[in-house]
Amino acid sequence: MIIVMKKGTEQSKVARLIQELESKGMQPVPLYGVERTVIAVIGDERILDEHHISSFPGVSKVMSVLRPYKLASRETQTEPTIIDVKGIKIGGKTIAMMAGPCSVESEDQIMSVAKDLSKMGVKILRGGAFKPRTGPYSFEGLGEEGLRYLRQAANKYDMAIVTEVMEIDQIEKVAEYADILQIGTRNMQNFNLLKAVGKTQKPIFLKRGMSATITEFLLAAEYILSNGNPNVMLCERGIRTFETETRNTLALATVPLLKELTHLPIIVDPSHGTGKKSLVAPMVKAAIAAGADGIMVEVHPNPEEALSDGDQSLTPEEFKDVMKEARKVALACDREL
Amino acid sequence: MIIVMKKGTEQSKVARLIQELESKGMQPVPLYGVERTVIAVIGDERILDEHHISSFPGVSKVMSVLRPYKLASRETQTEPTIIDVKGIKIGGKTIAMMAGPCSVESEDQIMSVAKDLSKMGVKILRGGAFKPRTGPYSFEGLGEEGLRYLRQAANKYDMAIVTEVMEIDQIEKVAEYADILQIGTRNMQNFNLLKAVGKTQKPIFLKRGMSATITEFLLAAEYILSNGNPNVMLCERGIRTFETETRNTLALATVPLLKELTHLPIIVDPSHGTGKKSLVAPMVKAAIAAGADGIMVEVHPNPEEALSDGDQSLTPEEFKDVMKEARKVALACDREL
Amino acid sequence: MIIVMKKGTEQSKVARLIQELESKGMQPVPLYGVERTVIAVIGDERILDEHHISSFPGVSKVMSVLRPYKLASRETQTEPTIIDVKGIKIGGKTIAMMAGPCSVESEDQIMSVAKDLSKMGVKILRGGAFKPRTGPYSFEGLGEEGLRYLRQAANKYDMAIVTEVMEIDQIEKVAEYADILQIGTRNMQNFNLLKAVGKTQKPIFLKRGMSATITEFLLAAEYILSNGNPNVMLCERGIRTFETETRNTLALATVPLLKELTHLPIIVDPSHGTGKKSLVAPMVKAAIAAGADGIMVEVHPNPEEALSDGDQSLTPEEFKDVMKEARKVALACDREL
Amino acid sequence: MIIVMKKGTEQSKVARLIQELESKGMQPVPLYGVERTVIAVIGDERILDEHHISSFPGVSKVMSVLRPYKLASRETQTEPTIIDVKGIKIGGKTIAMMAGPCSVESEDQIMSVAKDLSKMGVKILRGGAFKPRTGPYSFEGLGEEGLRYLRQAANKYDMAIVTEVMEIDQIEKVAEYADILQIGTRNMQNFNLLKAVGKTQKPIFLKRGMSATITEFLLAAEYILSNGNPNVMLCERGIRTFETETRNTLALATVPLLKELTHLPIIVDPSHGTGKKSLVAPMVKAAIAAGADGIMVEVHPNPEEALSDGDQSLTPEEFKDVMKEARKVALACDREL
Repeated sequence: MIIVMKKGTEQSKVARLIQELESKGMQPVPLYGVERTVIAVIGDERILDEHHISSFPGVSKVMSVLRPYKLASRETQTEPTIIDVKGIKIGGKTIAMMAGPCSVESEDQIMSVAKDLSKMGVKILRGGAFKPRTGPYSFEGLGEEGLRYLRQAANKYDMAIVTEVMEIDQIEKVAEYADILQIGTRNMQNFNLLKAVGKTQKPIFLKRGMSATITEFLLAAEYILSNGNPNVMLCERGIRTFETETRNTLALATVPLLKELTHLPIIVDPSHGTGKKSLVAPMVKAAIAAGADGIMVEVHPNPEEALSDGDQSLTPEEFKDVMKEARKVALACDREL
Repeated sequence: MIIVMKKGTEQSKVARLIQELESKGMQPVPLYGVERTVIAVIGDERILDEHHISSFPGVSKVMSVLRPYKLASRETQTEPTIIDVKGIKIGGKTIAMMAGPCSVESEDQIMSVAKDLSKMGVKILRGGAFKPRTGPYSFEGLGEEGLRYLRQAANKYDMAIVTEVMEIDQIEKVAEYADILQIGTRNMQNFNLLKAVGKTQKPIFLKRGMSATITEFLLAAEYILSNGNPNVMLCERGIRTFETETRNTLALATVPLLKELTHLPIIVDPSHGTGKKSLVAPMVKAAIAAGADGIMVEVHPNPEEALSDGDQSLTPEEFKDVMKEARKVALACDREL
Repeated sequence: MIIVMKKGTEQSKVARLIQELESKGMQPVPLYGVERTVIAVIGDERILDEHHISSFPGVSKVMSVLRPYKLASRETQTEPTIIDVKGIKIGGKTIAMMAGPCSVESEDQIMSVAKDLSKMGVKILRGGAFKPRTGPYSFEGLGEEGLRYLRQAANKYDMAIVTEVMEIDQIEKVAEYADILQIGTRNMQNFNLLKAVGKTQKPIFLKRGMSATITEFLLAAEYILSNGNPNVMLCERGIRTFETETRNTLALATVPLLKELTHLPIIVDPSHGTGKKSLVAPMVKAAIAAGADGIMVEVHPNPEEALSDGDQSLTPEEFKDVMKEARKVALACDREL
Repeated sequence: MIIVMKKGTEQSKVARLIQELESKGMQPVPLYGVERTVIAVIGDERILDEHHISSFPGVSKVMSVLRPYKLASRETQTEPTIIDVKGIKIGGKTIAMMAGPCSVESEDQIMSVAKDLSKMGVKILRGGAFKPRTGPYSFEGLGEEGLRYLRQAANKYDMAIVTEVMEIDQIEKVAEYADILQIGTRNMQNFNLLKAVGKTQKPIFLKRGMSATITEFLLAAEYILSNGNPNVMLCERGIRTFETETRNTLALATVPLLKELTHLPIIVDPSHGTGKKSLVAPMVKAAIAAGADGIMVEVHPNPEEALSDGDQSLTPEEFKDVMKEARKVALACDREL
């Protein structure tokens, strides 16, 4: 930690702060410049609270040197984490494709889409049974009935399931049916939920919050890891900016950046990341070229009749073309799909 | 709802969409312009899903005419809502002052600050017992012990309590001690929690999400209102922007804007809204001048020893000056404090 | 400057960087921590280029200790700058009111509004003669004809004029008519224009860029100051965020923050800052309570017939009420108006 | 244009607005809903001013149906624009690679890099002679001397040149040396400069403003096109968001989105778009996969000695690898490079 004092701060205030730092087991090194004093602090700054130090008299600015997450950090674990979901490896050479409708709407719907997807080689089926909705008057999902349909479809077509869990009380039930538990964008900082899924051993699919920084994203993962569950994959799904032509701004540079900072697998969701079906295919290819370990896409047998997010869903036929093109890019990048 | 078709869309596609709209009980009026067709839809568009309509072939853009919330809207209730908390009226002529430490840290701390605040005329005591923290290695609050201290202090000094509830399972316990339940920024779209507090009759203090639009904010309130609890106050606490000199960007124009859109009381939190204690006093005055119905400020007996947010906390003496200045501005704006 | 090296960087790379720093006259102090090496650099870091240092092998992060502007800094000049415009003092106890139409549209229009405004005690008349417009098909102002009308009106009613200058070639002509030269939002980083107005002695009204950080804003002022013109006032006019209900997000905490960082006067423009006439009155009051040294408001004799920005313009009668209310708030804040 | 009236607006106000619209040659169609009146306006709304209509009494919201640019629109010209720069086609099947240092620093530097780049097949050389710098104390480029070096290098290695022009007075001189004129990010809304380059026939490389919307970006292009110059290429170079780990947020979905909206070629600049050299290679590949027509990359013979932007520059050897990988992705996407 680096502490910049205000110009002209009295020596007594500097001394007091140094004492405080020493009392926490740190080794403070004061540097007396021409204009102002800077205190460099040697030791594990993560036990210091930046806001706490900022409140001392005479302090102008506090700058952290280390990133505040440990278990999620590439410095702690240099080898990439590979998560095994029923034999499907996520985080290795093969890019994991996850597809399916936004919401599970009926047994027929999910059976039909699972059949089509499995034929194309997709091994992970997505579908929402519990749906977070911005307003209280929208379709909220079929609940447990939806989970049952998902499981039936997955069993029939030998697929794994990823589906969202919205609250602590749902974890047990959702975990009964699903292979991967999704934590949605709006729950990325629902810390009690993170701790609770951290106590299971289920693979967790953690979506980035709409305006979460990379550091906050990795700290959310740290909550899960530090509670004992090492199976976390991170999903870039677009952030909120001033641009309104797309639903979100898909920040693909996040993929190689996260690869540097963490050992966890990175998935990209271009459906929510753009909100427009015509942009999904190019963004799938771009995400693969950027180095993503997996891709999640919304596919619906009949987008016009979808109960949610129809405008960003592809039909199975459209998705078949996406898969074909995506395979070529993966190959060019020395990956498989 | 206004539906703009793509240039050169075939008549059959327009017809199909019109049929769909009629089947939902709407009255579609097609307008054939030189360049393109626009369909104006008469009827309660809130039963239509924008994303659903967008997915029809030939649709270029869908624009909503009505705002999607009803109960929160000023058009539904023209009179301002005044919430009564143990005789304290929130939403009327008197501006409600809420103050106290970020976290309850000890019995002494909260007793001392409550004593000071009550002497200045502050009637609502804030203090966190359950604290959401960005990383898993920070102080998370005293839990129920903190609630007990809060209640003792509030009883002794005849104050009401506002404190955060982080998950459904905590509601009952927190409601036992607190007079106002706070829903934090990170939980503004924790829809199950919103529904659950909507089923109580406790006044709810709903903080705006870090990057929530005004519409999303009011839809979050709508979740509470539509579950039967009319006692919702809204708190502007700063939004996330590119600016890093302040912790957040306090958007004070939100205050008069919300006054136009909704009948619910509006509170401003300049402590989180700026993150710097030197900016709190001017922002308290500005918030009052902007028309806020209440102000929430962090006050700590000894900010340098605070376990959280010390850099944005005022001492009781500093806050006393703020109160004095704030009173003058309130008076100039024909309000009381 | 603080330079954080990557974990496990070889000693030779550290040595090489130290050599480079010494060659620039700096005094580098290497601190060897358990996890990594940090180099604290004593000396005037403003002569180092952050991007340059970042490019050395082994460097993980570079953090500046000092702010990069000097002349604009409160540390260089502790006394507030007071700008004298024909006897009107900007930056002192009296709040400077500036009002007038977005564009000068005719002699009658500007005469009529100047008459009304001067009666209310407004001493600075605004009005655009050269208008930057987002698209090429909009009204671009009357040009020199507009300047002439402005001058006539100002002379008749004993007012000073503030108007925008859009390019270097216009400076001479605009300076002939105007008392204050405005640099618009879109030109805040038109560095050649900044240098050119820095070579005049005319007071400059510098608007914050739509997404400029505070540091960039002050560096833009530094361009003008370092070219010899000390008469710069800064205008907060709202920044661009994800919120679409208002045209911009007026960041009022900028006012007291700038007061800490710089000695230059701060003006607030709530008309562009909100884009909605109903929000102007509360934001004028809030800006004054926040400590603004001046306020700029759009006033048009007949907003419905305005050729630009009619939706954010007040009528003279409406503005009269704003003035009355603003005066009360100013008084409560120990200012005059 | 769609005009939504406030609930309960008197019929006389609706009538007045209808009259105004008719007087402008529009055909207004009032739609009387249960809750409110909506006026749909048939005709070329681009001659109406949204802000003007918003200022009429009773108007609640104005929504544009058409996009405000014409010449830049894909609806006006369905075939892609292909720009010919000395025989190099930009906008066709072959992806145009542009590379070179941020600033021209010496004859040796630019000769050396041009030699290396031309060997790899790069045909367009970039290099800044006039540099916009955030603060007044940084290196501003060699000016005309830099242009001369650029031209010598380009002539020797048979390359074309792209370089920035910062003000109207520089156009003639820069055009003498350069093949493509770059309009920088900070000048995207320097409308007089746009008009002036629109009057030349030189190909223009227009960089997106740091916080420009897609619509504003295309309106900036419209300024150039409507002044008679059809040779405009658009450059996505990252937008400003809350994220600070990268210099900007490279919004790659902009590429396919612009392809839908406009016929102009789209270039991507991953060097400024990320600000980190380690992210450039994956973003080059991702940009190609997203459908970019060209790529601009900063390459410097010795980034550690660069006078600007060293931290985002690649060495020629590093760039050689990027080219190799990029070629594979281009091929997989049925493009050439």
